[in-house]
Amino acid sequence: MSDPWQECMDYCVEVTKRAGQVIRDALQKDIDIMEKSSPVDLVTETDQKVEQLIISSIREKYPSHSFIGEESVAAGAPSILTDNPTWIIDPVDGTTNFVHRFPFVAVSIGFTVKKVIEFGIVYSCVEDKMYTARRGKGAFCNGNPIKVSGQQDIKKSLVLTEINFKKDVEQFNTMMNNVKTILTIPVHGIRSPGSAAINMCLVACGSADAYYHMGIHCWDMAGGAAVLTEAGGVIMDISGGPFDLMSRRLIVASSRAIAERIVKEIKEFPVGRDDQ
Amino acid sequence: MSDPWQECMDYCVEVTKRAGQVIRDALQKDIDIMEKSSPVDLVTETDQKVEQLIISSIREKYPSHSFIGEESVAAGAPSILTDNPTWIIDPVDGTTNFVHRFPFVAVSIGFTVKKVIEFGIVYSCVEDKMYTARRGKGAFCNGNPIKVSGQQDIKKSLVLTEINFKKDVEQFNTMMNNVKTILTIPVHGIRSPGSAAINMCLVACGSADAYYHMGIHCWDMAGGAAVLTEAGGVIMDISGGPFDLMSRRLIVASSRAIAERIVKEIKEFPVGRDDQ
Repeated sequence: MSDPWQECMDYCVEVTKRAGQVIRDALQKDIDIMEKSSPVDLVTETDQKVEQLIISSIREKYPSHSFIGEESVAAGAPSILTDNPTWIIDPVDGTTNFVHRFPFVAVSIGFTVKKVIEFGIVYSCVEDKMYTARRGKGAFCNGNPIKVSGQQDIKKSLVLTEINFKKDVEQFNTMMNNVKTILTIPVHGIRSPGSAAINMCLVACGSADAYYHMGIHCWDMAGGAAVLTEAGGVIMDISGGPFDLMSRRLIVASSRAIAERIVKEIKEFPVGRDDQ
Repeated sequence: MSDPWQECMDYCVEVTKRAGQVIRDALQKDIDIMEKSSPVDLVTETDQKVEQLIISSIREKYPSHSFIGEESVAAGAPSILTDNPTWIIDPVDGTTNFVHRFPFVAVSIGFTVKKVIEFGIVYSCVEDKMYTARRGKGAFCNGNPIKVSGQQDIKKSLVLTEINFKKDVEQFNTMMNNVKTILTIPVHGIRSPGSAAINMCLVACGSADAYYHMGIHCWDMAGGAAVLTEAGGVIMDISGGPFDLMSRRLIVASSRAIAERIVKEIKEFPVGRDDQ
């Protein structure tokens, strides 16, 4: 029997390439910034244009499929994962980077069937790196197989996370204290590239050993989760339990030992769920 | 009268390209890590090999010139800036990134005469971006002119800094509190790419609006300082006074307003000098 989802994946790569070109073109122009809710929460015309391009292209070909897209949800669409084939889309992952032309900006698409991620595509469009992963068939960057570093020792690790302002003082303090705790282990270093999807791909290809984040969304995680898993990485909830796409939190790592050490070191704060 | 230092600069670009190729080749291989003093302070065979390549190539052509190189100083050479034409060299800026194949790794060379930086070259060799700047003649990336964002409002800024472990608890706390203070302004975001030379070039080409650092060295700053200044950027000491290449600290920004706001916001900690 042929793989029913491979065709969707091939089509997704094509659409993602076109979306990436729109983003690269926009980076050449002046950027018209609109603000969603705070200076840190930026959304651009490009975000909406790219999501529309992706959803309309896919809907035309697969009219019965469902969609969860960052901009659609911001505009009021529901964010509920069902058993139906579902495309989970972040048109511009790393919007702040995009606005500043900081070179980590990605299109991220994950595809689920019966709530299982069947494939993921992350296109880091300034670097021109196309990460692809089909469940059970490995992960690739521009067609070349990739794998995690396999590092077991957190003291030899490069760790990625988001270091950002939070209005909730307690959450902000907890986030900053977590950074201090991780640095004090000590690890080799901490980096904050500013794109969740690219962070997962950096761990997937061995350029970093772990990434943790609370307050993320399903569209930030779905594409990268497939790439990370197929590259041999470990993905789990912040609590150490199974990864939950709608939980708004995750730890990924090159090994179970490192992921579990991060579970032990960091403190949680409440972030709600995407499906509530 | 012809520019006496243009020939040195042209030669420097050539040597830097060769050095970058050595680094890229090494990134394809397994990396044999030696440890200098702590797990965070890594030095690789490549560091030493690249510095030797650069210094021997330049010394052959300019035998009367002086050198300050990261690896030479680590091996006991003096780090004193004189009036003699001096090449200030970081063979692999972003050593931790190099070890992890995190994609921000640079060769950085600054050239001073009578203690004034005459030109600077920063080659971000994974991105394949060659930043060049001759005093009074502008800054370029791969031959195309670059300039800072010109951003005046710190609340619309992307800020770069180093977020790393420090054994001195007071210094570590001060560094982390500075990050919190900057985030709380609030700014658009903070990034920690892990290469001082590339950080300065990111500000120079408008991909970030500011960068501050205490505990840096002259070889981390010399090349990037030329690029930043010629791109229209502002460079100053952490105190707000004039930039001092040997002071181990700096603020660079897209505008004086942003640099001075950072001076006001952050607290200093003692870092010594390179020439003491």
